[in-house]
Amino acid sequence: MPLPISERGRQMPASPFRKLAPFAEQAKRQGKKVYHLNIGQPDIATPPSLFEAVRQADIPVLAYSHGAGTDSYRQKLAAYYHRAGIEVSTEEILVTTAGSEAILFALLTCLNPGDELLVPEPFYGTYTAFAIAAGVSIVTVTATIDTGFALPPLADFEAVITPRTRAILLCNPSNPTGHVYTRAELEGLLGICQRHGLYLLSDEAYREYCYDGAKATSALNLPGGDEYVVVLDTISKRYSACGARVGSLVTRNKTVWQAAFHFAQMRISPPGLGMLLGEAAVELPESYFDENRAEYQARRDLTVRRLRAMLGVRCLVPGGAFYVMPHLPVDDAERFGEWLLREFSYDNQTLMLSPAAGFYQTPGLGRQQVRLAYVLNLKDLDAAMTVLEQALLAYPGRVEEPVAAEAAELAGA
Amino acid sequence: MPLPISERGRQMPASPFRKLAPFAEQAKRQGKKVYHLNIGQPDIATPPSLFEAVRQADIPVLAYSHGAGTDSYRQKLAAYYHRAGIEVSTEEILVTTAGSEAILFALLTCLNPGDELLVPEPFYGTYTAFAIAAGVSIVTVTATIDTGFALPPLADFEAVITPRTRAILLCNPSNPTGHVYTRAELEGLLGICQRHGLYLLSDEAYREYCYDGAKATSALNLPGGDEYVVVLDTISKRYSACGARVGSLVTRNKTVWQAAFHFAQMRISPPGLGMLLGEAAVELPESYFDENRAEYQARRDLTVRRLRAMLGVRCLVPGGAFYVMPHLPVDDAERFGEWLLREFSYDNQTLMLSPAAGFYQTPGLGRQQVRLAYVLNLKDLDAAMTVLEQALLAYPGRVEEPVAAEAAELAGA
Repeated sequence: MPLPISERGRQMPASPFRKLAPFAEQAKRQGKKVYHLNIGQPDIATPPSLFEAVRQADIPVLAYSHGAGTDSYRQKLAAYYHRAGIEVSTEEILVTTAGSEAILFALLTCLNPGDELLVPEPFYGTYTAFAIAAGVSIVTVTATIDTGFALPPLADFEAVITPRTRAILLCNPSNPTGHVYTRAELEGLLGICQRHGLYLLSDEAYREYCYDGAKATSALNLPGGDEYVVVLDTISKRYSACGARVGSLVTRNKTVWQAAFHFAQMRISPPGLGMLLGEAAVELPESYFDENRAEYQARRDLTVRRLRAMLGVRCLVPGGAFYVMPHLPVDDAERFGEWLLREFSYDNQTLMLSPAAGFYQTPGLGRQQVRLAYVLNLKDLDAAMTVLEQALLAYPGRVEEPVAAEAAELAGA
Repeated sequence: MPLPISERGRQMPASPFRKLAPFAEQAKRQGKKVYHLNIGQPDIATPPSLFEAVRQADIPVLAYSHGAGTDSYRQKLAAYYHRAGIEVSTEEILVTTAGSEAILFALLTCLNPGDELLVPEPFYGTYTAFAIAAGVSIVTVTATIDTGFALPPLADFEAVITPRTRAILLCNPSNPTGHVYTRAELEGLLGICQRHGLYLLSDEAYREYCYDGAKATSALNLPGGDEYVVVLDTISKRYSACGARVGSLVTRNKTVWQAAFHFAQMRISPPGLGMLLGEAAVELPESYFDENRAEYQARRDLTVRRLRAMLGVRCLVPGGAFYVMPHLPVDDAERFGEWLLREFSYDNQTLMLSPAAGFYQTPGLGRQQVRLAYVLNLKDLDAAMTVLEQALLAYPGRVEEPVAAEAAELAGA
């Protein structure tokens, strides 16, 4: 009899972003060019000063750092937050192994096994994996495409709160929808947290990438939120440094910080070379963000414009991050995504996208939606949009009317 | 009413290695030189070729890697294992964020919450934190100083196995005792695993550091172990690269590998710069280990010789790692450790050690033992031993007889 693995090991999902990967590899072996719109891996070059900082470092022994990160990185990070309009002290910052570890530590610290975490859906699919690892249940409140995936009504949150609810988790600006939560939305959520004694966990990985002059509101800047708010952060998207694995957990709640720090001591220290690189990153001038923001905004504008010109596609204008989540005239986005890679090509090109089902917990939702990450230069993005346009015309499963779940959703909006 | 943190957050201990840290800082502020024998942070220089590999790398975008690590690092790692006499394929290797993450993924994958993990004590104190994070209970089987902390009798393991027991975890060569488990000991443990359907989790961070010509037996080389054995590994100690945060989980059990890989996909990828450094590390010639082994052996010999010359100190000769765990003629090693930093100095020097209580789960055990890490050059180590010798003579809590728990242990031996 084979040894059983754990229940959580059985439940732990394969990455929703990797399901189509074998088909993409096959398409490339067949000589097709595959545009990758499926993963939030920025294509913009990592700033050379980051590598230069690592090259210049004179390190006799690459030793463990303090569990909360090196003093020097934490100080520079506090200065970065100050420039971002967020006043936190070094003692309120815990350096983590990317945003991933910040999410895990927050769940382990704030929730008991069996507790419930409220998350507006669609949400970053990997939250599901963290919830399984921490033994907690995600309870969703559904946002709709018709409002640009704005925060669902507060009453919808109130309606699903139970004695086991311990926290609300959101990503702002949102992966996967691109929605930038308004201050009013966030204050509403904090009000719920205050009334029901819930933590507000705010994943702010895309803070700087808001368009049309908008600014994201950090949950750390909500009056009265000090006890409730835990911010989960990372340099990954901000500086095109996903491989560095450097993030942070920031909270003014000292009890939460201390417990999260004990989880951090368990793994001794965050990545040392990554923190060196991070020191150079957080010292980049504002012009770095201005340039990238302009580039991403141009891409967003192109993507939305091209999508809206496609018959049967619906797409509101997302305010931030680098994703759009359009409705497509297809029977099933997973089938469409597989068909794109296995059967379709236009001018020997095809594309890989993320079917939205991976971002919904409620079965059946998002069947006609996909997440597109605009992490290609404008020329390639334009070419990819042409491929998508042609594919939608050629796809045998094209449907002119919304399928049942979407129709109900649209009707209710 | 303040928001409660989770039960596991409350249980999560502060690092046992950091308890005395504030007193060490105070001693330094008073101008004392403090010899650090308390933490397994190698002082030997990180090989320059490791940094050179990072300096030479031309990386336009520091991107996510595959969740199991880069192909190129996994291939080189498989070659390293081959040279170490361990035949594993790249598909059996999962690159982790240091040994810490390998331990966490193994526990999450192999055990359910509430399950029991058998660990010979004394053990690496941080295992306790991982067990709390994973919601599992550590059940100990006690090894004694009189046998040099050899594996306790197999009957002692059999005696504590319950229907909830799912795995045995050991560190070989051992942190904190320096014991190198014999092939017969390991085969005995595997036999128990086979009879009772338990995983054998083997932390082999110190593989190369065995002395007097001895070689550590990898659990991966036990016949019949393929289904049972999961090796937890790291480059931290092997190459003085603790800050890189690069390790591995290695198993021939495909189901375990796959589930652990899903946990790995949750955090997307291991540290990218660390893996670059790791590639250079695992290609170092055998002479690198020969030199370091000779250095560590000389230090071990000095440490043991000096300890044995101190009245009332007992110390067997440990076969590996870079720790010794002597019995000291003190009333309480925690009190002694604090006294050393707060009240004692010899020639304006003192030392920091790890009281052994942090390595025992059974209350009261190890009260007269300390772990000393010989991570100082021979001259400093000799000076530190002189400080220790003088301290033991001056300590007001000196006792000539073993205290109760140790006496019972000695009587039983």
